Amino acid sequence: MSGTYVHGYRERESERLADQAGTLVELLHGDTSYPAGSTVLEAGCGVGAQTVTLAARSPRARITSVDVSAESVAAAGERLERAGLRNVDLIQADIFDLPFERHSFDHLFVCFVLEHLPEPATALERLAALVRPGGSVTVIEGDHGSAYFHPDSAAARAAIDCQVQLQAGAGGDALIGRRVYPLMVAAGLADVHVSPRMVYADASRPDLVDGFTRKTFTAMVEGVREPAIEAGLIEAGEFDAGVRDLHRTTEADGTFAYTFFKGTGTKA
Amino acid sequence: MSGTYVHGYRERESERLADQAGTLVELLHGDTSYPAGSTVLEAGCGVGAQTVTLAARSPRARITSVDVSAESVAAAGERLERAGLRNVDLIQADIFDLPFERHSFDHLFVCFVLEHLPEPATALERLAALVRPGGSVTVIEGDHGSAYFHPDSAAARAAIDCQVQLQAGAGGDALIGRRVYPLMVAAGLADVHVSPRMVYADASRPDLVDGFTRKTFTAMVEGVREPAIEAGLIEAGEFDAGVRDLHRTTEADGTFAYTFFKGTGTKA
Repeated sequence: MSGTYVHGYRERESERLADQAGTLVELLHGDTSYPAGSTVLEAGCGVGAQTVTLAARSPRARITSVDVSAESVAAAGERLERAGLRNVDLIQADIFDLPFERHSFDHLFVCFVLEHLPEPATALERLAALVRPGGSVTVIEGDHGSAYFHPDSAAARAAIDCQVQLQAGAGGDALIGRRVYPLMVAAGLADVHVSPRMVYADASRPDLVDGFTRKTFTAMVEGVREPAIEAGLIEAGEFDAGVRDLHRTTEADGTFAYTFFKGTGTKA
Repeated sequence: MSGTYVHGYRERESERLADQAGTLVELLHGDTSYPAGSTVLEAGCGVGAQTVTLAARSPRARITSVDVSAESVAAAGERLERAGLRNVDLIQADIFDLPFERHSFDHLFVCFVLEHLPEPATALERLAALVRPGGSVTVIEGDHGSAYFHPDSAAARAAIDCQVQLQAGAGGDALIGRRVYPLMVAAGLADVHVSPRMVYADASRPDLVDGFTRKTFTAMVEGVREPAIEAGLIEAGEFDAGVRDLHRTTEADGTFAYTFFKGTGTKA
C-alpha cells in the first residue's frame, strides 16, 4: 500500500509537487545556500521538485541527488535540463546503500523523506555519517496535524486523518514536523535549530489559496481517496464531504493554515 | 460560568497574563507603534498586560484603555504606574456603551477580546464606528486549535478541548484566530491583512518552554479544571493526565506549537 502514495511516484503527484515547490520555494528554501566548491548530498530527491531550487540557489556547489526510483531520477534529470542546471549528479540508489565513504560530503539535505521511514532518527544518523565533521545537515518536513482551517469541518479533519493513518500503516509519520527537533538531536547532531514555516492562506493571498490550499494540500488529500476507502478507514460519502469542505476553505471568507518545520544541525 | 475563566479577572490569571505578555511582547506587538499625537482606543484592556506594551511602544500617542471590570482597571492602573507610563487614560466601562462620539479615535486596538463575544463581527463593527475614516484597526486573537505538541497525547487534546467547550458555552470561540480575516472583512474594514504569529518551543528555546508552554498555555488549561469537571466535560483523571502530558512536552525531547493571529485593517 505504501507505494500508492509515497511522494513523487506518479504523474499527478509529480504535478502536485511541482505546484507545491513553486509556491513554497521562498518559504522553505530562501535561507538555504551552499558555498562555491562545497559538496551536498540530497537524499531522496524524488522527481527533483526541490533539487532545481537547491541547484539554482547554490550554483557553484556540487550537488549529488539520490532517489531509489529510476523513474523519479529520470524525471528529475529532465527537470534539471529544462532549468539549464548542470551542477547536479543524479544517482539511482537506495539512500541506505550508497556508494560513498564516510565523511564524503560537506552538507546533507533531506526534504520530505523522513516522514516515510519507520526509524527516522536512525536513518538520519546513517545519512549524516556521510557528512564530514563540522558539515551541516538540513531537514524539512511537514506536519498534517498542523492543518486547520475555517470553516472548520469534522469531515475534512477525518479525510486528512486518512492520510495520516495510511502513512502510519506504511511505517511513516505524517505528523513528523513537530518531531524534527528531537529526531535531529537523537541522530547525534549538534547546534540543532528548528524553525517552523507556516503557510497561511486567506482571500487576500489568492496565490497561496490556489497554489497551496487547493493544488497542494487538498489535492494530496484527494489522492488518498481510493486507498482510504479500500482500507476501510472512511466511507466514500464522508471522504467526499471532507474534500468538499477543504475546497470550501478556499472561498472568500475561508482560511487555511499548515506548517512545515525546517531543522539545521552540525555534524559533530 | 463564563466569569470563572474570562481573562484577567483573578489573581492567578493576572500573573499568567503578565507572563504571557512578557514572553510574547515582541512576537505580537513588535510591529505596532502609533504616531505622536494620535489617539488610540484599547477596547478590553483587562489588567493592562498589553496596555503597558502599547503605551511604551507609542510614547507620544494618547491611549484610552477601557475595561468593564473596576478591579481590572485598578490593576492596569497600578501596572502603568509601576512602569512609569503616563500616556494612558483608563476608563471603567462596557466597551459597547462607551461615552465617545463616532470617529473619536485615530486607531482601535482589540486584543484577546473578540474570543469572548457571541457576535464578534458585529462587536468589531460597533467598536470600529468610534474610529475616524482612514484610521486603523488592529485585532489579535489566539486559536486553541492551533496547539499541537510532541509527544502527542489524546488526554492533553481532551483537556484543551474542555477550554474550547467552556468558552463556546459562554458564547465565545477559543478557535477564533483562524476567523480574524473574515471577521474583519465582515466588520466592513478595508485592506485587511492577517499575519499569523507562531510560538514554537523546544529545548533549544528554554525561555519559551517555561514562559509559554508551561506558564501560559498549560497554566491556562489547568485553570479550567474545576469548571470542566463540574460541567461533566471530562473525568478528573483524564484531565489530570492531559495536564501531565502537556508538562511532558516541556522535557528535553518535547516540542510545542501555538499560533496567534494579528489582523490590521483600515476604517473605510
